[in-house]
Amino acid sequence: MSGERELDSRLRCAALRGRLLSADEAARLIGDGMTVAVSGFTPSGCPKAVPLALAGQVRRGERKLKLTLLSGASTGEELDSAWAECGIIARRMPYMTSKALRAAVNGGGGEEIAYSDVHLGEFAQNARYGFYGKIDVALIEAAAITEEGNLIPTTAVGCSQSWIDLAERVVVELNLRQSAALEGLHDIYRPDDPPARQPIPLTQPAQRIGKPYLRCPAEKIAAVVVSECAEKPRPFPPADAVSDAIAHNIVRFLQKEKEAGRPSADRLPLQSGVGAVANAVLLGLKDSDFDHLNFYSEVMQDGILDLMDAGKADFASATSLSLSESGMARLLGDLEHYRGRLVLRDSEISNSAEVIRRLGVIAMNTAVEADIYGNVNSSQMNGTTVYNGVGGSGDYARGAAISIFMTNSVAKGGKISSIVPMVTHVDHCEHDVDVLVTEQGYADLRGLSPKERARRIIENCAHPAYRGQLRDYFERACAQSGGAQTPHLLDECFAFHRRLRETGSMLEEK
Amino acid sequence: MSGERELDSRLRCAALRGRLLSADEAARLIGDGMTVAVSGFTPSGCPKAVPLALAGQVRRGERKLKLTLLSGASTGEELDSAWAECGIIARRMPYMTSKALRAAVNGGGGEEIAYSDVHLGEFAQNARYGFYGKIDVALIEAAAITEEGNLIPTTAVGCSQSWIDLAERVVVELNLRQSAALEGLHDIYRPDDPPARQPIPLTQPAQRIGKPYLRCPAEKIAAVVVSECAEKPRPFPPADAVSDAIAHNIVRFLQKEKEAGRPSADRLPLQSGVGAVANAVLLGLKDSDFDHLNFYSEVMQDGILDLMDAGKADFASATSLSLSESGMARLLGDLEHYRGRLVLRDSEISNSAEVIRRLGVIAMNTAVEADIYGNVNSSQMNGTTVYNGVGGSGDYARGAAISIFMTNSVAKGGKISSIVPMVTHVDHCEHDVDVLVTEQGYADLRGLSPKERARRIIENCAHPAYRGQLRDYFERACAQSGGAQTPHLLDECFAFHRRLRETGSMLEEK
Repeated sequence: MSGERELDSRLRCAALRGRLLSADEAARLIGDGMTVAVSGFTPSGCPKAVPLALAGQVRRGERKLKLTLLSGASTGEELDSAWAECGIIARRMPYMTSKALRAAVNGGGGEEIAYSDVHLGEFAQNARYGFYGKIDVALIEAAAITEEGNLIPTTAVGCSQSWIDLAERVVVELNLRQSAALEGLHDIYRPDDPPARQPIPLTQPAQRIGKPYLRCPAEKIAAVVVSECAEKPRPFPPADAVSDAIAHNIVRFLQKEKEAGRPSADRLPLQSGVGAVANAVLLGLKDSDFDHLNFYSEVMQDGILDLMDAGKADFASATSLSLSESGMARLLGDLEHYRGRLVLRDSEISNSAEVIRRLGVIAMNTAVEADIYGNVNSSQMNGTTVYNGVGGSGDYARGAAISIFMTNSVAKGGKISSIVPMVTHVDHCEHDVDVLVTEQGYADLRGLSPKERARRIIENCAHPAYRGQLRDYFERACAQSGGAQTPHLLDECFAFHRRLRETGSMLEEK
Repeated sequence: MSGERELDSRLRCAALRGRLLSADEAARLIGDGMTVAVSGFTPSGCPKAVPLALAGQVRRGERKLKLTLLSGASTGEELDSAWAECGIIARRMPYMTSKALRAAVNGGGGEEIAYSDVHLGEFAQNARYGFYGKIDVALIEAAAITEEGNLIPTTAVGCSQSWIDLAERVVVELNLRQSAALEGLHDIYRPDDPPARQPIPLTQPAQRIGKPYLRCPAEKIAAVVVSECAEKPRPFPPADAVSDAIAHNIVRFLQKEKEAGRPSADRLPLQSGVGAVANAVLLGLKDSDFDHLNFYSEVMQDGILDLMDAGKADFASATSLSLSESGMARLLGDLEHYRGRLVLRDSEISNSAEVIRRLGVIAMNTAVEADIYGNVNSSQMNGTTVYNGVGGSGDYARGAAISIFMTNSVAKGGKISSIVPMVTHVDHCEHDVDVLVTEQGYADLRGLSPKERARRIIENCAHPAYRGQLRDYFERACAQSGGAQTPHLLDECFAFHRRLRETGSMLEEK
């Protein structure tokens, strides 16, 4: 298809022909002090050309400005990293994975950014309630614009519909590099707000409840920027023996649940996070007895495609295609095969407390550290330095039928134990963690008292090199607290972390 | 009405006449090692005669047994206290307020009880998923039994329907002291389990979606015990100047929200916990500009009756009438007046994540301590000794449109600061706390970064006597962490608690 005909098929709203701007021109619609809200979730589906153009204007000294940046989750390098590096971001929510942004949030480079972590499933609603003030510009990547001005999203949805509804004006990046065949994959449903809000009618992961496009009044669109930016998928490390062992333990737990007659992956949909361990779990399921698997998740990873190809998975609901480059090529290369097995929803729906609890999702998320009582830290190193953030893990852990957290039992070659006496930051309290899994084994914590949990976590999940230290802490805490419910020694509970700081290892010298 | 005619009108199922047992006989249906699940929520609606009879049998040395006790929330003295005192309870979930039980859970008396805290809104579902094993006996207080054997609950619902559905057999305490006029107040709706679960159709606090009785096959009822036990309401301390000031600050916040055009008590239903401060907030609303208030809450307190009487509140949905003796007399004395303004639901519905988020509830719960970053401890003293438990606070805080936590800024005559550098236990993480309120003022935390939150909490909420100490900790943590997102000094974060232990006060000597 020639460039002009390609544009005709993508930009179907004649009235918007007159609003075609270059990325550089469109970037000038963003002014100092504004709040900019962007499409996408993870690097997928985020705007790229206008953010890069704006960063260029600032780097060249043509403009100076500070913005509040709202998104669905993390964004691509073209946005979070480029903007953090040139000091444009004053305030950022609700999640991040950019190295440059992380450095600026933690005082490690450039001007400090006020970053706050928000449960992803609550973010669009909070914005509609007015908690974050006025939204000036919604910057939305689209694969096409319909005759009416409605937008076809690309590889992710996130909070786009709410941003369009709330923003003073909308700037569309019509990205011709995103496949036109993505049209039809999306199911857009934005709940009304109380007191008019109705039940979200979703009762099965595969159900469609909305429209295949983002509703957008054509008159709200201030600019259409034709872009041809390739999306850079986030690479993630391959599975290794440790992540395989974690996956094996999760599958073992799920099989035991089924044998016990309790609901398991045979009856309930699965959620799985991003990363090597999450992908290893998916691979592990390929060799399990489970079939007809369903996913109700934030992200669609390569492992889900593998499960579909192996005839083990029926359907995946997500808000983002977080596929590798080869995974995306595989999906797009045979999209008609996958089309009926996949839907991309608003993150308010993928991460909805209502839907997650109704469906009875089995949630599998990653912990940075967990303590002997089952509290989980997913975000803060030493309770102080934020890594990525809580993301959607809390939405799933709280709503889930069964909430599983997984982590390597040790990090940095054994110098850090992921199981500690007390976590330095709590993202998921003991009441939201049903099962803790490491490569050592799993601890089923349901119905256990804190002291019972401690014994099980130490014996089943901690690395053998750390079990003695953990037992010693726990036993002395029990003795000194006189049999209290959750024995802790407040003077010692962070001794593991202190030792790491002072000696380079949490391990006690013998 | 004569005793016999009264019984006729209460026990309408002829087939059950033959299953009338004394409390003593019925107590013998409960055997060693069993799991017993009881009706009610707070002391309201709990069985009384059979538990007291069983405790008597054990005290007199006639029997020896250990049980698992499941309930809706806490129970009355006849159950938790009586059973804890005679050592019957081996395991207890999901909540408690009994002094004797608390002592046994914390190693302070008799044999230790394995107590674990569970979010109240998830408890019935977890039991149906099979997480707590088989339920042997459901012990249900009823105001009447219908022709079919269905049960009319009394002053609370809790998890009764699930207990009836799951239990091997049902023992009914037909309590003639509970008003027969309670019939019709209840709306019983038990969701099916996944994958068959449908949306809970509730879209307004006043809506009825279920039946006015607990479905119970007559053949499942092993015994009917006629009882005349009076319910002992839990007394709570009267409001004082401090709770009035907290209430004033909450009303001030709500009015500011309304003025800012954001949803407030004029558009969203309120949830309020139990206790003096919660009641003071209700009294505070009486003098506010808000009217047509609606409540979507766990408990109905005297303050809500006051608001109804003052023409300020339209409706209250709850799972329990947690009224004072005079409040209960007031309600029952004019029940026809209140009948259309009140509904009692299953705690799975009152505390449903789905419904709370849909309705956009404004949640108001009490903190034991809060830290400078907005994390809240609702349950554990020194992270070690459980007081009551998390209860339903997490259900509401997580699902709410606006999650407010309130606490006195100091306790024990100023020796304890409720605002500390780091809480010793986290029940509600920083992402679930929108507004923190003390008698000093309120801190609106929405959209703020952790460091911004710290400054606002210290200046607006901490007691002036502690502000210097808190600022000192925060500033040194900022300096030493090199500008990290959430600065903490792990060696010092519990220095307030250490000082309290060593000197009897958290206050630094000048």
